[in-house]
Amino acid sequence: MAGVEAIDKLTHQLSRLPGIGRKTAQRLAFHIVAQPEEDVRELAVTIFNAKKQVHVCPVCGNLTDREICSVCADPSRSRDTVCVVKDARDVNALERIRDYNGLYHVLGGVISPMDGVGPDDIRIRELMSRLAEGEIKEVVLATNPDVEGEATAAYISRLIKPMGIKVTRIAHGVPVGGELEYTDEITLMRAFQGRREL
Amino acid sequence: MAGVEAIDKLTHQLSRLPGIGRKTAQRLAFHIVAQPEEDVRELAVTIFNAKKQVHVCPVCGNLTDREICSVCADPSRSRDTVCVVKDARDVNALERIRDYNGLYHVLGGVISPMDGVGPDDIRIRELMSRLAEGEIKEVVLATNPDVEGEATAAYISRLIKPMGIKVTRIAHGVPVGGELEYTDEITLMRAFQGRREL
Repeated sequence: MAGVEAIDKLTHQLSRLPGIGRKTAQRLAFHIVAQPEEDVRELAVTIFNAKKQVHVCPVCGNLTDREICSVCADPSRSRDTVCVVKDARDVNALERIRDYNGLYHVLGGVISPMDGVGPDDIRIRELMSRLAEGEIKEVVLATNPDVEGEATAAYISRLIKPMGIKVTRIAHGVPVGGELEYTDEITLMRAFQGRREL
Repeated sequence: MAGVEAIDKLTHQLSRLPGIGRKTAQRLAFHIVAQPEEDVRELAVTIFNAKKQVHVCPVCGNLTDREICSVCADPSRSRDTVCVVKDARDVNALERIRDYNGLYHVLGGVISPMDGVGPDDIRIRELMSRLAEGEIKEVVLATNPDVEGEATAAYISRLIKPMGIKVTRIAHGVPVGGELEYTDEITLMRAFQGRREL
């Protein structure tokens, strides 16, 4: 601790952020008090405004500072495909590839009995309501390729298939630029099973 | 970018902090907007208050949120020794060892002709004024063991020695827990030169 109450308090607050340890928090605190007052005021105001303005899109669950998120509000997006993801960060990652032109559905989590998260704790019911409207022809399950993500995809798939809607899962395989030698066996097996004719 | 203006703005602000890259900034921004409003308000207020309340101690240059810093104000500290450091973070580091009981003098930088920092740009004049008062018997030069730190220590040493005040330099050597094999040659040489009889 720096022995200066205001710096110690700031260090403590910053160290509660994910990935920020005590040493980094203290370095940041010392940096912040050395900045011009105007810059620090702007940082504080930006933090508070982001929290005040950003909320969940009532249609898809993505984050937005408008009434409806920018994807749902975009008239050029194709409305017959919905990509199901765990959280808003995933929407962000997929939007960066600038390839997908459909809509999203953000679950706000994945089914994880270990953490006490069941199907009713994530936005599956909201997804089913959207599908019931009849406009959606394909659901792309893009939850993470881990145990919870796979289980959640399997669960949702079982719910949707009887409705006659096409359900797809993002491909698993060797990452581009990756090397077979260093790829784990399950990924390699998936890459092999998912092989395509050229 | 997340496509949400308030998050993008926050990401940009956070990425200006030292050691926080774009990806980390974005992760932090998403984390912040997911926190309860009260927690985010407290973070913002703590940041702004730290900047408003913390200033340089008029005696030694350390950071404080009181009139005079906690070291200068402590009547139990020995007033005949002054440890000269580059910045307030160094005071912090030295205070953690709980071994030193004298005062400090924070230079607020080191002499670095490459960066256009000369002796008049750091608090050397203030140090000389303190020494002129006659109470100080020893000056411990604890600037970093790098080129600028060594040059600054040498410069200050030359100024003080004619005043008949004892000038010492912190020891250089192999770090505790370090291995000779992986210690650079200059450090090893200093460790050898600084050997003590047991």
